[in-house]
Amino acid sequence: MLAEIITIGDEILIGQIVDTNSAFISQQLNAIGVKVYQITSIQDDETHILSALEDAKKRVDLVLVTGGLGPTKDDITKQTFCKFLGDTLVENQQVLSNIKHIFRTYIKREPLLSNLVQAMVPATATILNNIHGTAPGMWMEKENTVFVSMPGVPYEMKHLLTQEVLPRVIKKYKRPYIYHKTLLTYGKGESEIQEQIKDWEEALPTAIKLAYLPSLGRVRLRLSSTGPNEKKLKEAVEQQMDLLYALLKDIAVGYEDDTNIQERIASLLDLKKESLSLAESCTGGAIAREITAVPGASAYFKGSVVPYETHQKVSVLGVDETLIQKHTVVSAQVAQAMATQCAKLFGTHYALATTGIAGPTKGDGEDEVGTVYIAIASPSGVFSEKFSFGNLRERVIKKATNKAFEMLLKEILKN
Amino acid sequence: MLAEIITIGDEILIGQIVDTNSAFISQQLNAIGVKVYQITSIQDDETHILSALEDAKKRVDLVLVTGGLGPTKDDITKQTFCKFLGDTLVENQQVLSNIKHIFRTYIKREPLLSNLVQAMVPATATILNNIHGTAPGMWMEKENTVFVSMPGVPYEMKHLLTQEVLPRVIKKYKRPYIYHKTLLTYGKGESEIQEQIKDWEEALPTAIKLAYLPSLGRVRLRLSSTGPNEKKLKEAVEQQMDLLYALLKDIAVGYEDDTNIQERIASLLDLKKESLSLAESCTGGAIAREITAVPGASAYFKGSVVPYETHQKVSVLGVDETLIQKHTVVSAQVAQAMATQCAKLFGTHYALATTGIAGPTKGDGEDEVGTVYIAIASPSGVFSEKFSFGNLRERVIKKATNKAFEMLLKEILKN
Repeated sequence: MLAEIITIGDEILIGQIVDTNSAFISQQLNAIGVKVYQITSIQDDETHILSALEDAKKRVDLVLVTGGLGPTKDDITKQTFCKFLGDTLVENQQVLSNIKHIFRTYIKREPLLSNLVQAMVPATATILNNIHGTAPGMWMEKENTVFVSMPGVPYEMKHLLTQEVLPRVIKKYKRPYIYHKTLLTYGKGESEIQEQIKDWEEALPTAIKLAYLPSLGRVRLRLSSTGPNEKKLKEAVEQQMDLLYALLKDIAVGYEDDTNIQERIASLLDLKKESLSLAESCTGGAIAREITAVPGASAYFKGSVVPYETHQKVSVLGVDETLIQKHTVVSAQVAQAMATQCAKLFGTHYALATTGIAGPTKGDGEDEVGTVYIAIASPSGVFSEKFSFGNLRERVIKKATNKAFEMLLKEILKN
Repeated sequence: MLAEIITIGDEILIGQIVDTNSAFISQQLNAIGVKVYQITSIQDDETHILSALEDAKKRVDLVLVTGGLGPTKDDITKQTFCKFLGDTLVENQQVLSNIKHIFRTYIKREPLLSNLVQAMVPATATILNNIHGTAPGMWMEKENTVFVSMPGVPYEMKHLLTQEVLPRVIKKYKRPYIYHKTLLTYGKGESEIQEQIKDWEEALPTAIKLAYLPSLGRVRLRLSSTGPNEKKLKEAVEQQMDLLYALLKDIAVGYEDDTNIQERIASLLDLKKESLSLAESCTGGAIAREITAVPGASAYFKGSVVPYETHQKVSVLGVDETLIQKHTVVSAQVAQAMATQCAKLFGTHYALATTGIAGPTKGDGEDEVGTVYIAIASPSGVFSEKFSFGNLRERVIKKATNKAFEMLLKEILKN
């Protein structure tokens, strides 16, 4: 059972937007045992769309298409599907009433003619109701391949995929099981890890595939396998994962099947009824942004300060000014004082602080661009670590954010 | 002159990572007049890689391939290129010394054998030096098509592309000019805009293409055209853009050719020598994160507070507690008090505050999930607006962030 994803729209090919839809669709399909063979991004161009549909039809059972369903002239997906299927556009009453409902409820004006035209769909298509927007999803078949067309707007696509498309896929196709498990490690590079697990990797059964997924200070190791027997599959992968975990226990911080590191921190703090605050200088809100992205963050996250200007570390956080004069603002002493003061200001069990030079230009002190101190104040005291994260601003901020989560998770697990 | 991008790696096809490389490569190619015809993501699988290379070769002049160049076993791009080109792997001294240099300087240990094996490259490949990593870029030719292989790690790829690949492309190929200009609008949907510009759009010369790019509260309108005469091309697009701007001047906030809205705010504040601080409750650091992503932010951004817990709005920001009791924490009064107090706390010209219910659960008050107040304090006073951003947490945060930037830019332009 194979699928492909086709995204339609010049905006991806000229790099104006990043295609996040395909990752979401792939994850969801994988979870129900459908393997994604290829993802293809093509233009809003009839000839190109037709040849992409034709090529995908030869390779796979299911083709998910996003984009090109808007009310404006540059959107030609529906007309092109008609050509591909030998079909014609007809007005669909269900879609028409959804469009009117959305305008009445959310947009609070009468729909324009171009909005009403969105109710024209290929006559043989099964309509998938889009509760978040005016462009309907469509389920179409040609010979033995199913084609699903969805709008490219991420939240509209997500709802259609999970509520309308996946249940139909589950019902229609017999699928093998796919099982992945991903180990999250921090602190060593991929070649060092490979060296450490060499003997194990060589003995790994061929049915189980290992992938190294390195990114900015962390490496994820993914084991995956496919087969007809869910129980056996899972047991085989879990058994190998246990061996792998034992080999890497110095750098492993947990699994990444369902949760990421922010979610692990969230659930631990929630469980222990402990709280967290942040004082972010060089990371400028990046850590708070990740923490508050997790629903329910208000249960343990009390707040944060971004004392971006040196003076604010004194006036807002209450760091002792002589410490800054003596050690410079980018120092272990100031990082630790920021964490301690932050815990006091917000009244939290844990406080995490960052101070450093994200670049591109150097600060006032001696330190190079990329120097970052991360400090944690906890019930058992305060400590900090110094890092050199290179000279690319975005990368310094991301690496510092990842490292901060790593340190925080370890510290919470310790207490 | 057409190009394609092929990304290799199972992690994209199982949705474990989002492909951001392709957007960057497409932007860069477009800027030098190379049109990207298709982007294809495929597996780390020899048969699949070979057929993708063969298909792309039939369609385009230049194929940029990323991924599959790591030191571990699952990386098979180089061996597969050898098969495709009828070539063999040989040790390259330049790459070998770069690997040793990187280990000596940054990793501070001896390279392992698997790292040294990264110096094996196809004999006929021209080596592109990767100063940020151990996997080299490679420029290869088969008949009339050029194939470039780059690592998938974004900052390594970016440096190789801009410093090594693009200069060679510019030298080798005669390219037409491509000119894009994008108008950024806030506050109306795409069908409303289409209605407003209908007559103009119908009269638009066929050589100029219009695209509507809607996303969370804003619509970007892109005009693009391709041709041999740069001056004429630019004039034709600019002339139409002037007409379009005039038709949409009620919702246009500027162009997006080189700068985004954060960068416009940054350059205006920098120019006027004015400063900014933030008090973010429901946006949880998202606005600060975007502001500090712009290099040089410390010139105008003094700092921010995320008073996530209600109590912190009183104790950290100094909002009057009786205001919260009287109007609830999600109210115009509290949003305005947060902005006013924030400007005082950080001593800034402008302060922006958000308070609302990002969801998924409701707050203590009467308001629905998605209710957000955004307030701005400026030299001319304080004001706020109320919004309903729907019931999806990530979307509420993003819409509030976009809206905050829109309000802030308008306010700065007014003063």
